[in-house]
Amino acid sequence: MRFTYLGPEGTFTEAALRTLPAAEQGVRIPARSVPEAVEAVRSGDVDAALVPLENSVGGAIPVTLDELVTGSPLMITREVLLPVEFVLAADGPKPLAGLRHIAAHPQASAQCRRWLESNVPDAVVVDVLSNATAAINAAAGEYDAALCAPIGVPQNGLTVLAEKVADRADAVTRFALLTRPAPPAPPTGDDVTSLAVSIRHDQVGALLAVLTELAVRGVNLSRIESRPTGEQLGTYFFFLDCTGHVAEARVGEALQGLRRICAEVRFLGSYARHRLQPEEPVPAPAGLSDTDFDGSATWLERIRSGKI
Amino acid sequence: MRFTYLGPEGTFTEAALRTLPAAEQGVRIPARSVPEAVEAVRSGDVDAALVPLENSVGGAIPVTLDELVTGSPLMITREVLLPVEFVLAADGPKPLAGLRHIAAHPQASAQCRRWLESNVPDAVVVDVLSNATAAINAAAGEYDAALCAPIGVPQNGLTVLAEKVADRADAVTRFALLTRPAPPAPPTGDDVTSLAVSIRHDQVGALLAVLTELAVRGVNLSRIESRPTGEQLGTYFFFLDCTGHVAEARVGEALQGLRRICAEVRFLGSYARHRLQPEEPVPAPAGLSDTDFDGSATWLERIRSGKI
Amino acid sequence: MRFTYLGPEGTFTEAALRTLPAAEQGVRIPARSVPEAVEAVRSGDVDAALVPLENSVGGAIPVTLDELVTGSPLMITREVLLPVEFVLAADGPKPLAGLRHIAAHPQASAQCRRWLESNVPDAVVVDVLSNATAAINAAAGEYDAALCAPIGVPQNGLTVLAEKVADRADAVTRFALLTRPAPPAPPTGDDVTSLAVSIRHDQVGALLAVLTELAVRGVNLSRIESRPTGEQLGTYFFFLDCTGHVAEARVGEALQGLRRICAEVRFLGSYARHRLQPEEPVPAPAGLSDTDFDGSATWLERIRSGKI
Amino acid sequence: MRFTYLGPEGTFTEAALRTLPAAEQGVRIPARSVPEAVEAVRSGDVDAALVPLENSVGGAIPVTLDELVTGSPLMITREVLLPVEFVLAADGPKPLAGLRHIAAHPQASAQCRRWLESNVPDAVVVDVLSNATAAINAAAGEYDAALCAPIGVPQNGLTVLAEKVADRADAVTRFALLTRPAPPAPPTGDDVTSLAVSIRHDQVGALLAVLTELAVRGVNLSRIESRPTGEQLGTYFFFLDCTGHVAEARVGEALQGLRRICAEVRFLGSYARHRLQPEEPVPAPAGLSDTDFDGSATWLERIRSGKI
Repeated sequence: MRFTYLGPEGTFTEAALRTLPAAEQGVRIPARSVPEAVEAVRSGDVDAALVPLENSVGGAIPVTLDELVTGSPLMITREVLLPVEFVLAADGPKPLAGLRHIAAHPQASAQCRRWLESNVPDAVVVDVLSNATAAINAAAGEYDAALCAPIGVPQNGLTVLAEKVADRADAVTRFALLTRPAPPAPPTGDDVTSLAVSIRHDQVGALLAVLTELAVRGVNLSRIESRPTGEQLGTYFFFLDCTGHVAEARVGEALQGLRRICAEVRFLGSYARHRLQPEEPVPAPAGLSDTDFDGSATWLERIRSGKI
Repeated sequence: MRFTYLGPEGTFTEAALRTLPAAEQGVRIPARSVPEAVEAVRSGDVDAALVPLENSVGGAIPVTLDELVTGSPLMITREVLLPVEFVLAADGPKPLAGLRHIAAHPQASAQCRRWLESNVPDAVVVDVLSNATAAINAAAGEYDAALCAPIGVPQNGLTVLAEKVADRADAVTRFALLTRPAPPAPPTGDDVTSLAVSIRHDQVGALLAVLTELAVRGVNLSRIESRPTGEQLGTYFFFLDCTGHVAEARVGEALQGLRRICAEVRFLGSYARHRLQPEEPVPAPAGLSDTDFDGSATWLERIRSGKI
Repeated sequence: MRFTYLGPEGTFTEAALRTLPAAEQGVRIPARSVPEAVEAVRSGDVDAALVPLENSVGGAIPVTLDELVTGSPLMITREVLLPVEFVLAADGPKPLAGLRHIAAHPQASAQCRRWLESNVPDAVVVDVLSNATAAINAAAGEYDAALCAPIGVPQNGLTVLAEKVADRADAVTRFALLTRPAPPAPPTGDDVTSLAVSIRHDQVGALLAVLTELAVRGVNLSRIESRPTGEQLGTYFFFLDCTGHVAEARVGEALQGLRRICAEVRFLGSYARHRLQPEEPVPAPAGLSDTDFDGSATWLERIRSGKI
Repeated sequence: MRFTYLGPEGTFTEAALRTLPAAEQGVRIPARSVPEAVEAVRSGDVDAALVPLENSVGGAIPVTLDELVTGSPLMITREVLLPVEFVLAADGPKPLAGLRHIAAHPQASAQCRRWLESNVPDAVVVDVLSNATAAINAAAGEYDAALCAPIGVPQNGLTVLAEKVADRADAVTRFALLTRPAPPAPPTGDDVTSLAVSIRHDQVGALLAVLTELAVRGVNLSRIESRPTGEQLGTYFFFLDCTGHVAEARVGEALQGLRRICAEVRFLGSYARHRLQPEEPVPAPAGLSDTDFDGSATWLERIRSGKI
């Protein structure tokens, strides 16, 4: 199998991709950008693309969300959660006190700001365009050190000066493995269904209606993210991560309800929830299991045929 | 066909029954009470019973509602609306000024109170047990006159002293034709679906949940009536008249939803709405027609099979 | 103090009134009907009237509800719950087997139907116009026995043949003590607020809006009763019994909300809940106590003045 | 008055700031980052800071949102909308066909992708760290041309090669002028109130409750944006832009409701809506004007004092 991912080599995305056995054994091709990665899937050049979806500190990745709602349909078939760990690395061992210039992607330095202030107060942070670029620059001796992902250390022959330098120990990035549309894998009992719905009017009533379609069927939300549609300020796509699988009755009925009231509904996939720590999946609320739906459907058949 | 109705002969219920051609040509047997009429249907002695359901002035008829939710299931297969018109009648022509005692059922005299005060201020109203009894008593000369239904006049050889003596010209009684369970007649495009739902807890939240199940599917209410379940003050059956037919997708889905969240749902029938004046039926709201439901079901099938 | 009540003497209403010390010591005048009792309050002839509001078996008393929403305003200042107990009584001791004719108000015989079928299967029940009439008729020897209220026994010198003959042991009638408008008594911590609201359109949406105004402020319903307004089938007054007192912030805010969205809101009183068995009152939900409202009001004042 | 803004000089933020007369006449100090700009307000070094809030193409600016909900309170006292217009500029006139390297911030080149593909298909886009950097680099002759903001042209003595090169003609960026807390300016009749609320549990029910508090008071949403709180994936701050002013009754009551149910509510300001085209403001819904609130408050006072 052929995979692409948001490159260059040495980014967190490559690290996330390599947690998937099929990708570790398959072909891995870095892409220059999320649109390029997505295009490679659409065109059939690769089988799947791993791209970042959201970061617990930095929020949603707008370009990924935008790709999911424009162009030909794609499906999320896996999610991968990866703890975000930054290291400070250099082209050889050196004392922190001597560092003058540190290369860092602005988002990386933002996530390590307090550590940098405490530990290298005199160093100047130089903005560069990616974590991988920072590592490459440090390896070339252009800067005294780099803030980068652990994966960038062996790839560039760097020496780690300090580990776990991020201010928040629990930061996580969530990635999505995108493929061309295909039947979702069967339910596992702990699944996520991702949707994008566009709302006709930017009103509290319209969003209330969307949430009510879910709530009535006992479908919970684990994420909601709004994105302007690009048409004008105030009109939105909402990205919803729902608890459950499209093959389940309650999720199916909720999706049909959304389809009837929303200007547009894009189904983005049903897939197993990735948990970093084992946690109990949230069961269907009382009265809303598949068995309950079957029971009410049977009852409706009976009353429609006069057998009550 | 054999029919029973809330007797005795000469009541409004008999008048309502005779508006149905099948009953005008069939056998009509008066019952002493609503429970007796209903029992005759349940036991198979008759094919159908006509009983009063509600009156625009006096409200619901509790005994009818109670019969609908206890014992073996019954179905409403027709509704009949009858304008309530009282006459003042006597055993011969006589001046109003000379009337001393007027026989009347308490509900009848309540509906004619202002007319009585204005037109026969000196007459004493004597309570009797039914409109038909009043007519019979007047015919027997026991009282000077009777407040009764028009149908009681020819049946007892009475003379009308005054017509349309009710204070409200537009009072209407609604009757239900009850049969044993059978497949409902096909939708006419202007139908009513009657339900009784019991609610587990007497809370605003529980009733909100019931109404939300309807609202989400665009099912409107034309009547809601609460009745204590008889178990304790504060627990209720709600009688709901919904716009639409059980064979319609939106009504079917709403019923299934109620079935899943309510302690008990009794389907009481889907039948053509009886209108005294021609009125446009209320169409399904935008996005909630059978065609829309078919469309969303087809879409769900597609996304479940990966064809998006 | 002068009291009136739904007479005649010997009814359950008189028994209920006499549970109030002020009435036991005051003047008690029977009224022929609920409208007559209510009129005596409105005109100032009496200070208060006790009338039945609802029965756990028979439901709401329509004439009382109608009086509460027509004419000049009245207030409920007390509620009285009285267990419904029927006795079979006669003008002297006699065996049940020998009873041929039993006088009973139709609602009384309906509540004792199963007992009558089991214990006096051969007796004919003769409908009379009130429980008190039944007792009077039996005392006069017109019928072999009467179904009546316990209070009718000593009043008519009757002998009890059987006690507690109602089919449901737990039937309760709820009475309201009505006065002219006055400031409600202070909150007791376990209060009821009664309202009547009319709804502009007979739609699920309008009723949902009413319930949402309550739910958002954590105001619970202990009763909801719909009554046609008398104008046409399908338009309603809803009688709501809410948990809490008009002096409480959450109840006050909910009432204001109803006032803004409903065609008409009648405040019918805030008064101590009468409990036959001691029960814990339902406290205000989390975040909705008067203290919470005070806190949010203080906060609003702060942000309005820029002190955040 | 002293202002700071997201620099460097020559960015869209400077252009937006200069649309404010007080800033055009006051002192304007560029900041290196949004946190630096915000810190200058908090510390009292400047009176106000203009920072980007959202872009109709790129979405919310996470760093600005994060600053608004951490640290000491700030208030939005103005919003400024600025159409986004990119130009292609160089150090002198030259034909498009000869361009080999074009400097651009990645977000700028993303917004002009289709124009670049059509008009300079052979040029390589070189990522640089800001629009202003691109202009400076082009002026220094490091690259053949720059994608930059119009304001960068005179500042760097550039020549415009092509105007309005963005793919979307209607892209808009919205900026917020932040100050230390102060009483909001009086209502103008067309105002926005900005809030950030954190939700205890990441559930559809919690968000429904928030929206219902607004909907019940007729407060509309013109924007909703979710941001992870940084604590764990799945817990959120919601940024809400509401129609109306905190001094209005309906907005005040809605805010109090949110305060009672949310873990945290940050009031971020009430300010005049900036409209690029004249548009009618949305009036308060029927029944929800300040006059209606006053009317219901007066009515509540009356019923609380028994004057009904």
